[in-house]
Amino acid sequence: MKRREILIGGAAALGGAATASLPAPAIAQGVKELKMVTSWPKNFPGLGTAAARFGQRIEAMSDGRYKVRVYGGGELVHPLKCHDAVQEGTAELYHSAEYYYQGKSVGYNFFASVPFGFTPPEMDAWLHHGGGQELWDRLSADFNVKPFPCGNSGSQMGGWFKKRITSAGDFKGLKMRMPGLGGRVINELGGTAVTLGGAEIMPALEAGTIDATEWVGPWNDLAFGFYKIVKNYHYPGFHETGTCLSLGINKKFWDALSRADQEMFTACAIAENNVDLAEFNANNSKALDTLINEHGVSLVEFPDSVFREMGAAAKDVLADAGATDATSRAIYDSFIKFRKDVIKWSKISDQSYMNKRELVDFHG
Amino acid sequence: MKRREILIGGAAALGGAATASLPAPAIAQGVKELKMVTSWPKNFPGLGTAAARFGQRIEAMSDGRYKVRVYGGGELVHPLKCHDAVQEGTAELYHSAEYYYQGKSVGYNFFASVPFGFTPPEMDAWLHHGGGQELWDRLSADFNVKPFPCGNSGSQMGGWFKKRITSAGDFKGLKMRMPGLGGRVINELGGTAVTLGGAEIMPALEAGTIDATEWVGPWNDLAFGFYKIVKNYHYPGFHETGTCLSLGINKKFWDALSRADQEMFTACAIAENNVDLAEFNANNSKALDTLINEHGVSLVEFPDSVFREMGAAAKDVLADAGATDATSRAIYDSFIKFRKDVIKWSKISDQSYMNKRELVDFHG
Repeated sequence: MKRREILIGGAAALGGAATASLPAPAIAQGVKELKMVTSWPKNFPGLGTAAARFGQRIEAMSDGRYKVRVYGGGELVHPLKCHDAVQEGTAELYHSAEYYYQGKSVGYNFFASVPFGFTPPEMDAWLHHGGGQELWDRLSADFNVKPFPCGNSGSQMGGWFKKRITSAGDFKGLKMRMPGLGGRVINELGGTAVTLGGAEIMPALEAGTIDATEWVGPWNDLAFGFYKIVKNYHYPGFHETGTCLSLGINKKFWDALSRADQEMFTACAIAENNVDLAEFNANNSKALDTLINEHGVSLVEFPDSVFREMGAAAKDVLADAGATDATSRAIYDSFIKFRKDVIKWSKISDQSYMNKRELVDFHG
Repeated sequence: MKRREILIGGAAALGGAATASLPAPAIAQGVKELKMVTSWPKNFPGLGTAAARFGQRIEAMSDGRYKVRVYGGGELVHPLKCHDAVQEGTAELYHSAEYYYQGKSVGYNFFASVPFGFTPPEMDAWLHHGGGQELWDRLSADFNVKPFPCGNSGSQMGGWFKKRITSAGDFKGLKMRMPGLGGRVINELGGTAVTLGGAEIMPALEAGTIDATEWVGPWNDLAFGFYKIVKNYHYPGFHETGTCLSLGINKKFWDALSRADQEMFTACAIAENNVDLAEFNANNSKALDTLINEHGVSLVEFPDSVFREMGAAAKDVLADAGATDATSRAIYDSFIKFRKDVIKWSKISDQSYMNKRELVDFHG
C-alpha cells in the first residue's frame, strides 16, 4: 500500500502564492495523514497512551499539517508486524518494541531490553551519549526504518508464580510465559518458555497450560487480573530491566522531511520517552498498593541463589545473541562495554542513595 | 528592557502574499531573537550544554523563525538572577535550577532537589503524572513565569572531605561549601554551611577557609580539579539526589504563543530533560575511572550511622520548609505523599534489580 496524502479544504490551491525564493509554506501543501501502527490495543495503559500522546503532540506542534492516525494492534496489521508495515511503506510510523523484530536481527533485542540489561536511565545514557543510537540507526537503515526511543516501561516485575520460587531447581519443568531472550534463560534453567499474546495469558493460567507468567508491572498486571488466579508476585524481573519502546519511521518518508520536521519528530519521540516512563512509575506505585491491600497478593523477592543462576544463564544467552552476525556483534560489544562502565556510576549514585535512604523513617 | 524583534532579509514584506482566510505563514513575521539567560558558563558540561542544545533544537524546529541567544551566567544578568530577568521581561527564557530562587518562595527548592528527595525518574513521575507540574505552574504564575523541567544532573556525590567522615560527630565544626536546604542540614549536624560560587571553591579549599565541598558529580568535579587538594570523595549525596534543571519562560511571551509554538517549547524542554540526564550519566562513568585510576582519589561510602543523622535532620528541615507559607505547604504535602508512594515501587524495581545484578559477574 502506498502512503497517501490528503489535501483538505483546497489549501493546495494557495501554493501559488508562495514566492519562488522561499520554500512554500507547509500549510499550502495540505494536511498529511500519517498512519501509525502499534503493537498495543489503542490507549492501552503506558503503551497505547504513549502512542496517542506522541500523535497528539505532532498534530499540535505542526499546527495540523500532520494528522497521526493511530492503529491499535491488529487493526491495520498484526501487532507484531509493525516493523514490516513501516519498512514497506504501508504505514509511515510504528510504535512498538524492538525485540519483537529479533527475527530480522538478533541485535534488535538490545534496543528494547535484554536479560540483566540497563535500567531506564542507563539505556538513555547508552542511546543518547554512548553510541547506541548510531548503532540502532545503522541496523534499521538496512530495513528502511529510522528509529527513536519513545517510551519506557521501567523495570518489570519478575512474574506471577503458582508456587513460590525458592531455588533455581524450581524452574525445572516449569511452563512460563516469557518471550524473547528472557525465555531462553528460562529454558536454560530447565523450564519451558511459552510465547503467548497478552489476551491469551489468563485462559492459559486458568486451564493450567502455564504455571507462571510475566507481563509488565503492577499497573498493567492489575488490569489483566492475574491476581485472581495467582498470588505470588516475584521481584525483581531479570528479563526486562527497563524496556525501551520505539518509534519507527519509514526512512524514505524521513529522508524527505525538512530539517525542521525531522527535529519535530525527534523531539516528540524523546519527550515521550521521558513522559511515558514517568507514567509507568507513577501508576505502578498506586497499583502495587491495590494488589497487596485489596487483592491479597504476596510480594516475593527472588532468592539470591536463583538470581545468580539466572545471571549465569543470561550471560551465555547474551553472548550467543552477540555471536549471531556482524551487526549484532557490534551492538553486543557496545552494550557490554557501556554496561560495565555505567554500572560503576549507578552503584555509587542512584543505587547507593536508594539503599541508604531506607535507613531513615521519613514517613513515620 | 523590552523584548526585541528582528526582521531579517525583508521577509516581512512577503506577508501580503498570505490569504486573509488563513493565518499568515510564520515566516512572514520575521525572525524573533529570544534571549536565554543561564546560571552557568556557556557550554559548561551538562548545564550549559543543555541550554545550548535546547536553543539549537528550537531554532531547527522552527525553521529559523526563532533564534535563541544563550547568555552565560553573568553576561547579561547575574547567574542567580535569571528568574528576575525572565519575570521582568529582560529575557524571554532562562535555564537554571529553581532552588536558587528559594528567596522568592521556599517551595522552589522542591522543583530542583531537596535533601533525601527524589531520584531523577521519581522526579519525572511526580512532575509529569503526580501533580508536580501543576503546582510548579501555580507557583511560577505568580512571578510571570511558565516553568518546565529541562535537564537533570542525576544523583550528586556526597562531596570532597579533607578528613574522612566516620561519624556524624565529624561534622561538628566542619566548614563545608553547600548551598540551600542541604546546607541547613550541615548546620543541624553542627557544621557551618558556606555558600560559594563554583569558581570560588578551589581558592577556598587551598586557603583552608573550607574543609569540605560538594559540587556536582565526577564529570564536573574532575574539571574543577578538587582532587589536587582533597582525596576523600564521599558518596552517596544526601542533599541533591537528582537535581532538576529548569526552563523558565516569560509568561506574557508564553501566553501569546500559538498552541503549536507552545507545544514546540514544551517538547524541546522535556526532550532535553531526557538527553541531559543521559549526558551526565554517560560522562560520570568515564570521569569516575579517571579520578580513581589517574588521580588517586578514594571513594568513601558514608557510614550508615551518618546517613541516619543526616536523614533525621533533613526530615526536620523539609518540614520547616513546608511550613513557610501556604504555597510551600501545598508543594511539600504533594512531595511527601508522592515520595512515600513512589519509594515502594522503586524499592522492588530499579533498586532491587541493581542490588541483585551485583551478585552476577557479567564482565569477568
